[in-house]
Amino acid sequence: MRSTKPFIGIDLGGTNMQIGVVSHDYKLLAPAKRKTKADEGLDAIVARIISGIEEACERANIRVLDLGGIGIGAPGVVDPFRGVVIEAVNLRWDNVPIADILAKKLRIRTWLDNDVNVAVYGENKLGAGKGSNQLLGIWVGTGIGGGLILNGKLHYGHFFSAGEIGHTILYPGQPRGNRTLENNCSRTAVVDRLVRLIRSNAKSKIIEDVGDDLESIKSRSLGKHYLAGDKLVVEVVDHTAELLGIAIANAVTLLSLERVILGGGLTEAIGKPFVDRVVKSVKEHVFPEICRKVEVVASQLADNAGVFGAAMIAMERAFEKKQ
Amino acid sequence: MRSTKPFIGIDLGGTNMQIGVVSHDYKLLAPAKRKTKADEGLDAIVARIISGIEEACERANIRVLDLGGIGIGAPGVVDPFRGVVIEAVNLRWDNVPIADILAKKLRIRTWLDNDVNVAVYGENKLGAGKGSNQLLGIWVGTGIGGGLILNGKLHYGHFFSAGEIGHTILYPGQPRGNRTLENNCSRTAVVDRLVRLIRSNAKSKIIEDVGDDLESIKSRSLGKHYLAGDKLVVEVVDHTAELLGIAIANAVTLLSLERVILGGGLTEAIGKPFVDRVVKSVKEHVFPEICRKVEVVASQLADNAGVFGAAMIAMERAFEKKQ
Repeated sequence: MRSTKPFIGIDLGGTNMQIGVVSHDYKLLAPAKRKTKADEGLDAIVARIISGIEEACERANIRVLDLGGIGIGAPGVVDPFRGVVIEAVNLRWDNVPIADILAKKLRIRTWLDNDVNVAVYGENKLGAGKGSNQLLGIWVGTGIGGGLILNGKLHYGHFFSAGEIGHTILYPGQPRGNRTLENNCSRTAVVDRLVRLIRSNAKSKIIEDVGDDLESIKSRSLGKHYLAGDKLVVEVVDHTAELLGIAIANAVTLLSLERVILGGGLTEAIGKPFVDRVVKSVKEHVFPEICRKVEVVASQLADNAGVFGAAMIAMERAFEKKQ
Repeated sequence: MRSTKPFIGIDLGGTNMQIGVVSHDYKLLAPAKRKTKADEGLDAIVARIISGIEEACERANIRVLDLGGIGIGAPGVVDPFRGVVIEAVNLRWDNVPIADILAKKLRIRTWLDNDVNVAVYGENKLGAGKGSNQLLGIWVGTGIGGGLILNGKLHYGHFFSAGEIGHTILYPGQPRGNRTLENNCSRTAVVDRLVRLIRSNAKSKIIEDVGDDLESIKSRSLGKHYLAGDKLVVEVVDHTAELLGIAIANAVTLLSLERVILGGGLTEAIGKPFVDRVVKSVKEHVFPEICRKVEVVASQLADNAGVFGAAMIAMERAFEKKQ
């Protein structure tokens, strides 16, 4: 039988960490937030994770020792079986056995996975990925992250790095910095393109939101002006959706995927019109014909996908271990 | 216990079919060949398959009813679980339950899979893919076919069409016919490019092999002049290897593959220098750093990969069924 104890889910990012107590029936009992402050080093980050866990437990009115386990999603290349962050540039971590560190400090079993994997897992169990066994999740934000569910399970691959669709080459022949999907379709790339066009005198109302600080354009602002029909924003975003659709189509052609979940700030800010554009491009570029049945949908758990997914991976693994 | 009976493996192509009796310890006891003649229709093809099986059995000095089973690899989209060829353009087949047809006519259990899948499976069990659980096989010939072994098993995906790397988009923005990997890197594409260059007065000794019939350039001829250092052939083939390397790198980045097997006429005709060029490009384009450890190797079973793989898939499935 599965444990009825609550679990902790942690979504550890380069800037912020989100922590939540999740009940055995998948309710978020209490959240907590901390800054990551990667420059302060491993011990300081671990201390903030622990104080976040304690705060969340207190708010949920439970003791830390009543937890069934902890799940943590970390950026970069991780080894989920040993619980080690192999390399995470934005955390400045190199071979950090974070699962063991937390398990020893708190005396609670801890499981680790990649941050995008835990989000895809969360969507697969509770959100837009429910019921699908062949699934790609793609998150478009500062960068582009991806995670795969194949034959109903998270796919890690030989080096545990599977899912890195953002780093696939979109434009062969282009130099480094210009050639990957992320280089061309992240929110950062969209803003770069807009800024370049505005600096060459293209007109857009988006400057009303940011004044001279053009680089500070956010997804919400892109969403607002896209939906208001700003010609320049529509042009740049639609072209991005077309390119994203090509990269997604390639993954579907290679893997015969049933469903693709689109997440991240841009998708959330624009919603259906953005997803529709991506769908159109996927259907135009996928092979064979039958794969046009692939479903491309928006994520449903938004910011909570990571916390839920991390907690649920821990529940799953704790259960497997007992059997 | 596994059967000690011999099995039949069939590699059914659009032009030829290869048939072989394979012993329980994976020796080719006797081969047989037939033309496919797809234009003569299903019944005629089935009759030729059966006469090929009978010939191979006779040469191996066994009776058809002594066979443990039949495995068949067919082109196009197939449903390996129902044994149905869903769509195979070059066979002119549409929803043909070929496994049942053969099983009923011969009273022998028959299993079907995709032709590239059976070749990858053969290489995985007996050839260049031995010992690898995360594997892409890519065959470069008239077209480009691919097959995946993920977590130690053939990967089919939701629509049973996984592996179609030849149909992924290499050049976004290019029109249909110009944009896929196959459009740009098949042997056909290499010859097209050479012919175009020769017609615009580029010099190459390859015309000595074919005279005016430039389109008839074969892989063997490409290999000979490549190895002799013919500048134009080297330029075109090396560029093709670079592009192939990008598509392979993208698959490795997405799936974290351990090994990639390169097969088909061009690889066989040129050998190591071609593989080396592909390797260089893969290492230049893959992500993250750790994936540069991916092994890219030439196929080992050549023309026999399909026959062996089809027979071995049948052995495997017959064994699974008994358990």
